[in-house]
Amino acid sequence: MEDLVIEKQKNNQTDVEKIVSLSKRRGFVFQSSEIYGGLNGCWDYGPLGVELLKNIKEEWWKFMTYRDNIEGLDASILMHPRVWEASGHVENFTDPMIDCKQCKARFRVDVLADMLQAKKKKKILESFREKIASDAVLAEKLRNIYGDIFTDEELDDKFNAILEDKELNIQLLSEVNCPQCGNKGTFTSARQFNLMFKTFVGPVEDSGSVVYLRPETAQGIFVNFLNVQSSARQKLPFGIAQIGKAFRNEINTKNFLFRTREFEQMEMQFFVKPSDDEKWYAYWKAERIQWYKSLGMSPEKLRFHDHPKNKLAHYAKEATDVEYLFPFGWGEIEGVHNRTNFDLSRHEEYSGKTMKYFDEETKEKFTPFIIETSCGASRSFMAFLIDAYNEEEVNGEVRTILKFHPKLAPIKAAILPLVNKDGMPEVSREIETELRKNFKVFYDDKGAVGRRYRRQDEIGTPFCITVDTQTLEDKTVTIRERDTMAQERIPIDKITSYLIEKIL
Amino acid sequence: MEDLVIEKQKNNQTDVEKIVSLSKRRGFVFQSSEIYGGLNGCWDYGPLGVELLKNIKEEWWKFMTYRDNIEGLDASILMHPRVWEASGHVENFTDPMIDCKQCKARFRVDVLADMLQAKKKKKILESFREKIASDAVLAEKLRNIYGDIFTDEELDDKFNAILEDKELNIQLLSEVNCPQCGNKGTFTSARQFNLMFKTFVGPVEDSGSVVYLRPETAQGIFVNFLNVQSSARQKLPFGIAQIGKAFRNEINTKNFLFRTREFEQMEMQFFVKPSDDEKWYAYWKAERIQWYKSLGMSPEKLRFHDHPKNKLAHYAKEATDVEYLFPFGWGEIEGVHNRTNFDLSRHEEYSGKTMKYFDEETKEKFTPFIIETSCGASRSFMAFLIDAYNEEEVNGEVRTILKFHPKLAPIKAAILPLVNKDGMPEVSREIETELRKNFKVFYDDKGAVGRRYRRQDEIGTPFCITVDTQTLEDKTVTIRERDTMAQERIPIDKITSYLIEKIL
Repeated sequence: MEDLVIEKQKNNQTDVEKIVSLSKRRGFVFQSSEIYGGLNGCWDYGPLGVELLKNIKEEWWKFMTYRDNIEGLDASILMHPRVWEASGHVENFTDPMIDCKQCKARFRVDVLADMLQAKKKKKILESFREKIASDAVLAEKLRNIYGDIFTDEELDDKFNAILEDKELNIQLLSEVNCPQCGNKGTFTSARQFNLMFKTFVGPVEDSGSVVYLRPETAQGIFVNFLNVQSSARQKLPFGIAQIGKAFRNEINTKNFLFRTREFEQMEMQFFVKPSDDEKWYAYWKAERIQWYKSLGMSPEKLRFHDHPKNKLAHYAKEATDVEYLFPFGWGEIEGVHNRTNFDLSRHEEYSGKTMKYFDEETKEKFTPFIIETSCGASRSFMAFLIDAYNEEEVNGEVRTILKFHPKLAPIKAAILPLVNKDGMPEVSREIETELRKNFKVFYDDKGAVGRRYRRQDEIGTPFCITVDTQTLEDKTVTIRERDTMAQERIPIDKITSYLIEKIL
Repeated sequence: MEDLVIEKQKNNQTDVEKIVSLSKRRGFVFQSSEIYGGLNGCWDYGPLGVELLKNIKEEWWKFMTYRDNIEGLDASILMHPRVWEASGHVENFTDPMIDCKQCKARFRVDVLADMLQAKKKKKILESFREKIASDAVLAEKLRNIYGDIFTDEELDDKFNAILEDKELNIQLLSEVNCPQCGNKGTFTSARQFNLMFKTFVGPVEDSGSVVYLRPETAQGIFVNFLNVQSSARQKLPFGIAQIGKAFRNEINTKNFLFRTREFEQMEMQFFVKPSDDEKWYAYWKAERIQWYKSLGMSPEKLRFHDHPKNKLAHYAKEATDVEYLFPFGWGEIEGVHNRTNFDLSRHEEYSGKTMKYFDEETKEKFTPFIIETSCGASRSFMAFLIDAYNEEEVNGEVRTILKFHPKLAPIKAAILPLVNKDGMPEVSREIETELRKNFKVFYDDKGAVGRRYRRQDEIGTPFCITVDTQTLEDKTVTIRERDTMAQERIPIDKITSYLIEKIL
C-alpha cells in the first residue's frame, strides 16, 4: 500500500529515454490513446511488448502454480465496496494534497516540494528558519515534533514531513510560488485524497452505488480463502496465486512504466500456521529474488531493502522489497510481507463470516498468517527490458542487443532466406510453418543479412536461422546465437529439438 | 455494441444451476466478493476455472498470432475519453430507462415488460387497445409508425417497441403497477442511460476528468493501427489481436457468465483493402466457427445467425453471430463483422491525425476496411463448460464427466498411487515432479481408486496415471483415458511423450 523511495544513483548506464524510444519504434510499448495526445499514466503493449509481458507472466505462473501447494485464481476487478473498508483502503489509502487558493490548482505535497529548484528551496528554508527564530511558539512546536531542525541540512531533511503536517505546511508554503499561476501561494492546508478510482454500478450515481477499481489484487485472494481451500481440498501451508490489473489514481505518474495509473500485478498469498510465519517469510524471500536471477536479471542490480521495524505498514510484522537498480536509482519491483492474520481477521469482522481454518490433525480452529509475495508485472517488464539492453561495438558499428533470457524473448527464432533463389522461399516457408506449431517466430527476407541480424538483435531474438544455397543441397541450415554471434550448422529436422532444448 | 436476443428453447438438457453448483463446489467459478453477499454481474475464476480460461485464451492467441499477418496488442482499459466520442459510445451506447415517479425506482424498459405476468400484459394490451379505439389521433400516430396493430397478437409483438417509444410508452405504462412500490405507475418517459462505467482521473471529480472503463477492447486496436503497422512493418491485409477485460454497466445481468458487468474479450481486427472486404469476411466467418469445433464443441450446437441488412449496426456492412445452444436457448458467443472504414475514419476525424494506409505498390493512400472477429472469452468459457458436461450411468451409478478437449482441460493428468506400500509414494512423487515440468498435474492418494477416478472425471482430467505394485517391479504404469475409461500399460519414461502426443 505504500509508495517506495527511490534512491537516486549516478550510474545511469542506460537512459530511460532510449528504452522508451526503442519501445515505440519496435513495438514494445506505445503511449495509450496516442493519437488523442495520450492518457497520462496508461500505456499500451505493442506486438513485441505483449509477448514479453505474456512470457514473464507465464514463467511466474508456472513457477508458482506448477506445484501441489499453490492454487490459481482470477478474481474480478470490481469488488464489493465493503472489501475496501475492511482492508483499510477507504480510510488510509490516501495522499496529502494542497490547493492553490488563487487558481484552484491541486498538488500532491511532495510533488510540490520536488518541483522547487534547489536554490528556491534553500531560500524558502532560510526564510522559514528566520521565522522560527523569531517565533518562539512555532519553534517549540517544531522541536516537539521533529526535534532540533535548526541547521539547513536537517531542515532540508524534514522538508517533506513539514509540508505534510497540517499545521506547519501553510507557514512554509506561504513562501512558495504556485507552479500553475505563479502567484505567491496562499495554499490550503494538506488534505487526504483517496487514490482509489471509483465508479457507480447501476443507473443511479449516488453513494449507495459506489464501487472501486481494485488498487491491489490481494484482496480478491483473501476473500476467496475458504472457497479455494475447500474446493481444492488444501491443507496449510498453501498459497493462492493471481495475475491481474490494478488501478491507482496517482497524482504524479513517472518513470515510464514504473509509476502508472493502470498496471498489472502478480501476487501470491501463502497461508501458514501462525507459528510458522518466520520460516515461510524467509523461504519466500529467498525464492523470489532467485526467480529474477534465474531469468537472467543481473544479480548485482538486485537487492533486498528490508523495512525497518518502526516503518512497517499497520498490517505487517516483517517486510522487504526486492529492488532493481533502474537508471533513475533503486526501485521496488516486488514486495515480500508477513501480513500476520490482519487481513483474514478484518474480513471476518466486516463480513460476519468466519475466515478461520480448521486443522484436522490438531482439531484447532485459528486464523492463518499470510506471507505475501507481490510482484509488479509492469515494473518487472520494465526491469527485464532495461536489464537486457546492451550496446556493443562490432566492426566499428554499434550493435544494440536486448539480451533477453530465451524464455522471455518475444520472438524465439527468425528465419532468414539468404537469396531469392529457386526453391529457397519454399523451404524457408516450410521451416517457418513447422516452427510456428511450437514457437513465435519471424520470417524476414528483406535487405542484407547483416541488417536483418541487427534488427533481430535489437528485439532480442535469441536464434537466427539462415537458409542458403547449401540448404537446398544437404537440408541443413545455419543457426546464429544472438549474444555470441556464433554460428552452427544443423539439419532442418533437428531445428525444433534444438530450440526446445535451448528455450524450454 | 448491441445486446443479443436469445431464442428460448425447450431442450434444456443441461441445467445452468447444475453447472453453477459444480463450478462452485469444484472451484471453477465463485461469486465475486461472496462473503459480502456478492457483487451482481461479477464472478471470480477459481483454481480450475482460471486454468480453463487460460487454456481457452492461449489456444485463441496461438490460433490468431502464430501466423505472419497477425500481430498482438495489449492496450490499457482506461483510454482517452475522446475515443468513446469518436466510436459513438458516448452518444449511442445506451439503454432506455424509465423511473417510477412515486418511489423513484428505475427500470430498463424491456425488463419492466419482462417482469409483467402474461395475464397482466394481456390486460394492459386490451386496455391500451380500447384507448386506441377511442382516440383517433393516437390510433393514427400508431398506424403511421407501426402499421396496423389492432389485433392482440400484433400488439403483443410491438409491445417493447411501443414501450421504448418516448411518446407512446407513457400511455401504455399508465396501466402498469410499479414492481417496486406497487402503485399504479406514473412512469416518466423513457430516457437513454449510458452503459459505460465512468470514473475520474486526478484529484478533481468534474466533467474534465471523466474517463470510461472500456466497454469493448476493439477501440484500443483501432487507435493503435498505424503504431502497430509501422513498428511491425506489416502490409495489408493484416490483423491485430487482443485479449482483455471490458466493462458494461448492464442493468440486468443474467444467465451466470452470459451477461455480466465485467467480462473478457478476445478480439481480432483484420485490416483489408476496401475491395477485398467480402472475401475476408467470408474467410474469417468460416475460420471462427471452425475454431470452436476444433476444440471439441458440439457442431450441432453451433450455428451462424446472420443479421438482416435492415438491422445492421450503423458501422456494419455485414454481420453474423456465432451462436451456441445454451440451456436457455441460442446465444451469441462471437460476432464477425464487416465494420467498413467507419472506425478509422471516425478516429481520423476526431483526432485530426491521419489513419490512412499508404500502399507502396499502387502508391495509393486509403482508409482500410476492418473485418472484426469479436469473441467473448467469458461466454466461450461458459459454452465450453456446458458443452463438456455429461452424465452417464456406469454400473448403476451416475458418472459426471466434463469431456473437455485435452488442450482445454484444467488438469492434464492425475497421478494416483494405488496403495501406500514401501517405495510407491516415492516413485509416484518422482513421476509428478517430472510431469510438472511441462503439465499442470494433480496428485491424489486419498480414498478408493474408483472415487479418485470419479473426482477427476468430474473436473475433466483426460488422463489418470495409476501407480501399483507392478510399477515397482517393471517401471510401468497404467494410463486410463477419461471418456472411454480404457486402460493402457506404458513405461514410466514414456509418460511425457505419451501426454505430449495426446495433448499438444
